[in-house]
Amino acid sequence: MNWVEFKRKKLEILERAKEKREVDEDIIPLLDTINSFDCFVTTSSCSGRIVVLDVPKIGDKLNAKFLGKWHRTVDWKEVAKALEKSTSTTWLISDPPIVHVACRDLECARILMRIANESGFRRCGIISLNRFVVEITSFEKLEAPLAVNGKIVVDEGYIKLLTDFANEKLLRGKEKLERLKSKLSSRKSFLRAL
Amino acid sequence: MNWVEFKRKKLEILERAKEKREVDEDIIPLLDTINSFDCFVTTSSCSGRIVVLDVPKIGDKLNAKFLGKWHRTVDWKEVAKALEKSTSTTWLISDPPIVHVACRDLECARILMRIANESGFRRCGIISLNRFVVEITSFEKLEAPLAVNGKIVVDEGYIKLLTDFANEKLLRGKEKLERLKSKLSSRKSFLRAL
Repeated sequence: MNWVEFKRKKLEILERAKEKREVDEDIIPLLDTINSFDCFVTTSSCSGRIVVLDVPKIGDKLNAKFLGKWHRTVDWKEVAKALEKSTSTTWLISDPPIVHVACRDLECARILMRIANESGFRRCGIISLNRFVVEITSFEKLEAPLAVNGKIVVDEGYIKLLTDFANEKLLRGKEKLERLKSKLSSRKSFLRAL
Repeated sequence: MNWVEFKRKKLEILERAKEKREVDEDIIPLLDTINSFDCFVTTSSCSGRIVVLDVPKIGDKLNAKFLGKWHRTVDWKEVAKALEKSTSTTWLISDPPIVHVACRDLECARILMRIANESGFRRCGIISLNRFVVEITSFEKLEAPLAVNGKIVVDEGYIKLLTDFANEKLLRGKEKLERLKSKLSSRKSFLRAL
């Protein structure tokens, strides 16, 4: 499949996902900006999230269960409520944004990585060489246990504190997305010419 | 600088660092295995670590201060002792291994990424196109606050629990390093021929 066709198919998938409201709203303006350049097309992306995750065994993603998942800041009571459903080891996790962008060629990937780095995303890399997929992400992370064997191990005060930090980290990630969008827009004519 | 010269220089730096005992011991066998192949040379790498970090402001790495740092499992009392020196917001962090490998060409980078992925490192990417530097890392992470404004916000029981999880995650990362080393060794003749 050539690049133009590949990009068209990816955009169709994105449009269908948008219609079904499956795309994290906060990231849509950035995705639209990236996709406005011929040499890039976004694939799965997330603006960052806060989750309450029940994990039977460390690393066992297959059997992990979301007790709560938000792409926005949360109130500590929402976390506490999700935690009530704990059955095993439950974690509060704040994940940074992850943006995936397929690039037409290696040079375009190099340029995108540089711009993302300058926007504060310190963790950028080409994760697939088939379509030169650049992963753009950063280090804002919180990952703390809330319950073990379904038994809550933190008090209300600590849940509030963790929630505050989780929110702060989430917002920092979202600021970086804004910065990336601005930087791409400010180099519009350069990127259009690629 | 051509590849052979570049590799020679990087190995010299590594040897000097080994002599000064600045290289995390646990990772040396893997680095030696990787460097035994003409097409690869390792740069800064870490087998994973547990740290107690004093962070005046989220994201302010410049003013962050290590109160404790270990490339091995720790006793909760070591964490508690490091925490006594807290002056601002203090975090317990368990970081996964990070291995950086410069590759002679893109094809070698592609092969290394595949082998690393198969070894359980789910986060591999080319982070620099100048020397095709592959970053090999994974998701084992713990990051939880222990103190705010120098005031401890967790009890002994929770420090023990966090330390147990930090150790468990650290060991999982180290197992992956073992697996990567084995996989590379088992493909010795293929990799030698590159």
